[in-house]
Amino acid sequence: MADKINGIDIRILKLLSKNARLTYKELAEILGTTRQRISRRMDRLERNGVIQKYTVIPNYDALGYVHVILGVTVKPGVDLDDVINAIKDDENVKIIQRALGSHNLVIHIVGPKDMKELERIITDVSKKVPGIDKLDITFVTETVKFEVL
Amino acid sequence: MADKINGIDIRILKLLSKNARLTYKELAEILGTTRQRISRRMDRLERNGVIQKYTVIPNYDALGYVHVILGVTVKPGVDLDDVINAIKDDENVKIIQRALGSHNLVIHIVGPKDMKELERIITDVSKKVPGIDKLDITFVTETVKFEVL
Repeated sequence: MADKINGIDIRILKLLSKNARLTYKELAEILGTTRQRISRRMDRLERNGVIQKYTVIPNYDALGYVHVILGVTVKPGVDLDDVINAIKDDENVKIIQRALGSHNLVIHIVGPKDMKELERIITDVSKKVPGIDKLDITFVTETVKFEVL
Repeated sequence: MADKINGIDIRILKLLSKNARLTYKELAEILGTTRQRISRRMDRLERNGVIQKYTVIPNYDALGYVHVILGVTVKPGVDLDDVINAIKDDENVKIIQRALGSHNLVIHIVGPKDMKELERIITDVSKKVPGIDKLDITFVTETVKFEVL
């Protein structure tokens, strides 16, 4: 990243993390600056990849979906890039994170409430991951707190 | 929830999940409807809690932070509500999810890159969780894919 992140960037990010729909005008008023400056800083944060995405946190249960987290530990020597390539276009796989520690890979699946169908999806995804040493399956039942920054 | 989620709601949600900053006008143009209808449906989705939040997905690494996921399994008989109350106001605890399966509770911590300080934060949070049976600690190193719907 060529440009340094400064105090105004952090304040913009904190406000957007609470409400990503704040307009340039609203942000400018809260932070006592101009829309132009807000727009310029946000463009930069997006270009630099500091802001990866503006998104919605939905209640999956209300939408008829189940949210499953797979914590994958692969055997030593397995190339994580190969694993990621094998699963990244799967439409049921929503989040993929490389990791260190208990798990090497964290995979989020959003699927239907039908348990038979969900089992098929989880089995399908696991089959695509070669060299699994350990697989932790966690079904999220409720998001009690969700903050970003 | 009193109101049914319909096709237009799902289409609005899918668009917002890709870019939560789309204006009513932009959404209306894409979906071939009016701003008024978009605004009315979104108000409803927010009120019903189907939309929990509009937020930003940041690159924590670029901001100088480390993103840690704690997968907690508690001993039988432990009241999860007590655990959640004990940790929910901790400023380092960003996400708390109740769960079934390998873990009963998924806790996301965002902390500094200083490992000594991070250890202190993780220890502090774990101490607040009574009756831990098993604790999986996973450090997210990169978010490769992030979709919501």
